[in-house]
Amino acid sequence: MNKNIQVNAAIIIIGNEILSGRTQDVNTTTLALWLNSLGVKVQEVRVIPDIEEVIVTTINEIRKKNNYVFTTGGIGPTHDDITAQSISKAFDVKYEVNKEAYKILENYYKSGQFNEGRQKMAWTPSNVKLILNPTSGAPGFIVKNVFCLPGVPSILKSMLGGLKNEISGGKPILSQTINLNTVESEIAEPLANVQNNNKEVEIGSYPFFKAGKLGVAIVIRSIDKSKIDICNSQIIEFVNKKKIKVVSKN
Amino acid sequence: MNKNIQVNAAIIIIGNEILSGRTQDVNTTTLALWLNSLGVKVQEVRVIPDIEEVIVTTINEIRKKNNYVFTTGGIGPTHDDITAQSISKAFDVKYEVNKEAYKILENYYKSGQFNEGRQKMAWTPSNVKLILNPTSGAPGFIVKNVFCLPGVPSILKSMLGGLKNEISGGKPILSQTINLNTVESEIAEPLANVQNNNKEVEIGSYPFFKAGKLGVAIVIRSIDKSKIDICNSQIIEFVNKKKIKVVSKN
Repeated sequence: MNKNIQVNAAIIIIGNEILSGRTQDVNTTTLALWLNSLGVKVQEVRVIPDIEEVIVTTINEIRKKNNYVFTTGGIGPTHDDITAQSISKAFDVKYEVNKEAYKILENYYKSGQFNEGRQKMAWTPSNVKLILNPTSGAPGFIVKNVFCLPGVPSILKSMLGGLKNEISGGKPILSQTINLNTVESEIAEPLANVQNNNKEVEIGSYPFFKAGKLGVAIVIRSIDKSKIDICNSQIIEFVNKKKIKVVSKN
Repeated sequence: MNKNIQVNAAIIIIGNEILSGRTQDVNTTTLALWLNSLGVKVQEVRVIPDIEEVIVTTINEIRKKNNYVFTTGGIGPTHDDITAQSISKAFDVKYEVNKEAYKILENYYKSGQFNEGRQKMAWTPSNVKLILNPTSGAPGFIVKNVFCLPGVPSILKSMLGGLKNEISGGKPILSQTINLNTVESEIAEPLANVQNNNKEVEIGSYPFFKAGKLGVAIVIRSIDKSKIDICNSQIIEFVNKKKIKVVSKN
């Protein structure tokens, strides 16, 4: 892939438990940080319910707009795990027993324990590439640019190591954070000027409360370290002029 | 609103900091639990970047499909806070100084501290209803069915109390959780039967690891307590038959 072209991804979190507020999603953070390190920018996240029609429609809309799509959730053995059959419908391919997945699961479980429920986890869309699962056996799978991962955060994390070579990212997205002992309104105008003078760089401003202290974190993001450095000096210049204390940089 | 009709909401999280993985969204959980208690079901969450065109398009798509839309983030004083101007574009109304918000902020800040940066927070789409902010002064606002709230979780939380009367929900969504000392594949088939026999109830199955113990949480959700009770007894029946231990119920 051309290293100067922005490579984008979307994340689709499939799960009623996130929409009901019962479970806090943490997979977005895991995937976003990992993708950033590979030079892939997450441009959209959607959380959708365990409803086949919604999954099919969302997948087909999103996969055309992004280089990569990652789904999390819905690939276990129970009735509410419908990701594999929904993805099959989205791509209009068969939903069938994947022989490789079947063998993996057969080996993973002790004799007699590979029951019907577990056999369901060997069903995938046809012609997928499997994503190996070093934690709990049941693999994820890849169909074209769609990567299907489980929802349990520790299992998802353990599967990313094996995926690195499947991703052709652009340049890694670098970032520099400057933590200031000030409030946003104090720096809004000069910071807007720095952003206007450096349109290709993404500058964010985030108020924080840490250990009882009020502050603002300025985050500069770009694939070009020299452009980050330019913004950094322009920010430090107005910060010094305004006698604002830099708490930390990272 | 008819108490038997499902009332739906969508949440739009506006913020590059969530997409980059720098910040973990927690507002979805807060809003979903609060909305559930008012009889409103969250059917979709989107996380989108601080890009005006994306905000406008997303708002206009989502607001037609939901009874309520909640946005979080992008209503502070800095250049990356563009929610109010984007919402104005989405509804094709003026983006202007809101006199009521101006007065609130003027009173909130000490004389001489209501600077230009802070005055930006008095700008809203025209003819909005304000959402008061007991924590940090700057109000949110309501345009038709779209509720715009800040991104800082503690501030957002403090603003919900004043919003209750703005929401006409359906019947509150009730839930019952049964925590079992088993694995999903053991119960997949009988649980699917219970779901098939009770199609109007939402039954989810979630594996967990707690204090080193493996288990499955079954969550039954419905607006009808008697339907939850029926599912509950059907589940307890097969659980007892299979000699699976019920760890807890809540």
